Amino acid sequence: SQTYKIAVIPGDGIGPEIVKEAMKILHHIEEHASYSFDIQYALAGGAALDQVNVPLPNETIQICQEADAVLLGAVGGPKWDHNPPELRPEKALLGLRKELGFYANIRPVTLLPGMEERSTLRPEVIDGVDLVVVRELTGGIYFGEKKREKTKQGEIASDLLVYYDYEIERIVRLSFEMALRRKKRLTSVDKANVLESSRLWRSIVERVAKDYPEVVVDHMLVDNCAMQIVRRPTDFDVIVTENMFGDILSDEAAVITGSIGLMPSASLGNGNKGLYEPIHGSAPDIAGQGIANPSATILSIAMMLRYSFADENAAQAIERAVTQVIADGVGTPDLVKSGQPAICTHEFGDRIIKRL
Amino acid sequence: SQTYKIAVIPGDGIGPEIVKEAMKILHHIEEHASYSFDIQYALAGGAALDQVNVPLPNETIQICQEADAVLLGAVGGPKWDHNPPELRPEKALLGLRKELGFYANIRPVTLLPGMEERSTLRPEVIDGVDLVVVRELTGGIYFGEKKREKTKQGEIASDLLVYYDYEIERIVRLSFEMALRRKKRLTSVDKANVLESSRLWRSIVERVAKDYPEVVVDHMLVDNCAMQIVRRPTDFDVIVTENMFGDILSDEAAVITGSIGLMPSASLGNGNKGLYEPIHGSAPDIAGQGIANPSATILSIAMMLRYSFADENAAQAIERAVTQVIADGVGTPDLVKSGQPAICTHEFGDRIIKRL
Ligand SMILES: CC(C)[C@H](C(=O)O)[C@@H](O)C(=O)O
Ligand SMILES: CC(C)[C@H](C(=O)O)[C@@H](O)C(=O)O
Repeated sequence: SQTYKIAVIPGDGIGPEIVKEAMKILHHIEEHASYSFDIQYALAGGAALDQVNVPLPNETIQICQEADAVLLGAVGGPKWDHNPPELRPEKALLGLRKELGFYANIRPVTLLPGMEERSTLRPEVIDGVDLVVVRELTGGIYFGEKKREKTKQGEIASDLLVYYDYEIERIVRLSFEMALRRKKRLTSVDKANVLESSRLWRSIVERVAKDYPEVVVDHMLVDNCAMQIVRRPTDFDVIVTENMFGDILSDEAAVITGSIGLMPSASLGNGNKGLYEPIHGSAPDIAGQGIANPSATILSIAMMLRYSFADENAAQAIERAVTQVIADGVGTPDLVKSGQPAICTHEFGDRIIKRL
Repeated sequence: SQTYKIAVIPGDGIGPEIVKEAMKILHHIEEHASYSFDIQYALAGGAALDQVNVPLPNETIQICQEADAVLLGAVGGPKWDHNPPELRPEKALLGLRKELGFYANIRPVTLLPGMEERSTLRPEVIDGVDLVVVRELTGGIYFGEKKREKTKQGEIASDLLVYYDYEIERIVRLSFEMALRRKKRLTSVDKANVLESSRLWRSIVERVAKDYPEVVVDHMLVDNCAMQIVRRPTDFDVIVTENMFGDILSDEAAVITGSIGLMPSASLGNGNKGLYEPIHGSAPDIAGQGIANPSATILSIAMMLRYSFADENAAQAIERAVTQVIADGVGTPDLVKSGQPAICTHEFGDRIIKRL
């Protein structure tokens, strides 16, 4: 039978705790599936800095390159915040995305039943939200040239936002394909009234759109989109945008779900390989207390089964289990209504398994 | 007695309609004040493109340079959307900011009584919000070098995000001064885990902070801030950030107020001179219908009186009048509760005057 190789990077902060729960789910799936998993743990981020003095060891890159999918908890923390740029935990994340060619970050946003009351948005505004942010992940200002110099006029620092047409085209095509399989609406977000890179972006969206006549496309300026995401989120289907705008807008959209602890993500390239991680960070303030919400990581496993292992049934089973447990009113402190008792991270994982 | 020169640029779309109401208020103020106004109208944006084929005529720059304050409605519209970059209406706005050295854009966000129900955020979340976004306005990616080139690997487009230390320092100082006069909290927003320009930004905030020991400063990553603005907006006092992040975050924050038609702004430099404009755009879809909400422009007049003419009393009188009219449940369609009758743009202006 088929064996899938999975690279697992627990990382920093709450990373190891939430990854542990996700691994329980993965083992449970394996017991009931026709395929099996070959798990390889790897170091990255602060954990790697502490042990081998680099944020992304070559060995980790290699393990990930040989894997069919990568699961990542979270990286970063105050301990390494004053490291020089090259020795920051975040470098591991950026390096992995780039080295493995994961140019498309998929962040679905839906409202799980029972969470309406946890969102700061009015229930009637978020009722029925079902959107996905597709963020370009290996280009733009994240990877353009960076400079810092002392000049006669003072110190100067710069970052280059740069895109090649083919980098834009591939993410735009992927987004159209996704829209085709969903509500057939694509919103491309840019700042074409100011940025040259956005004007190139927009022209490519217009060109590719001709190949997808069934998809309704519109262009939205990023400032306006930041407003509309919290004004009329149900109007959106697929949102595609460049790296930095996607970073900002997808975190903002997390507010809809009522807890950032609920948002999974998949980073894809060409082929079926992917990197799966919760969108929340390492949350050092609550690390080690057993109260972290493992949902986003568990839901990232569902995305792994969907995109890398083509097991849509198992993916949906996990999503249903998480939905049901939350609908039961059971969860970590961030999930339950204020005043109600909460359960801890590993109990939450157990409940999901019981529901599976 | 003192005479202040005011340059007035109605601009495009709803610009002329809302500026007309603001001018009524200004004339009313003049009748009761010890100073008088010398008003000069000027062309910019699409209106200038149509008449003299450039978005920002030299004559307009000169009128604004000689003025003590500039009032601007809005520029832009679909008619000019396909113009080449140099012939876009927005160039007028960017050019004015840069030519006149207005490096600090001040966008206050408060919830007017009666508007709780118009916001898509829950009333308990926005109750008591009183924050101000200070956005750097003449630097960063808006003004850095732009390129578009055909290369062997394909077409490439880029925008340079660049800051000198002195550009950061002056806006940061202005923000500390503002925080001192308010709740003494300053949140500096950056993306220091990725951008070199943000690391320079952060180091300058830390240095300047030493001169303001009474102000509590924190640094927040822009993605997190996009989330926190709609999660716990009452925690903020002064938010300072670079040009593009400020553009996005201030529009997002507008959702708190229940209508983008309520958000005024002031753009300041060294000295008392300023450019005052609503943060909403030219809204071509509703232009000419007499339904545009003039509040943001009228509130921008209040900011003009406050910052350029040091007449705090008159500024507060206008703010009170707008607050009261809205609290009475009277307003343009975007302001009244659904199902209730609305009044038109010029009636709204008249009501404000009656209240003054
Ligand atoms: C940690 C940071 C570098 C990262 C990013 O900005 O991409 C994170 O915010 C994310 O969204 O995955
Ligand atoms: C019209 C546009 C160029 C402008 C900007 O991005 O600065 C507008 O969005 C604003 O915020 O004043």
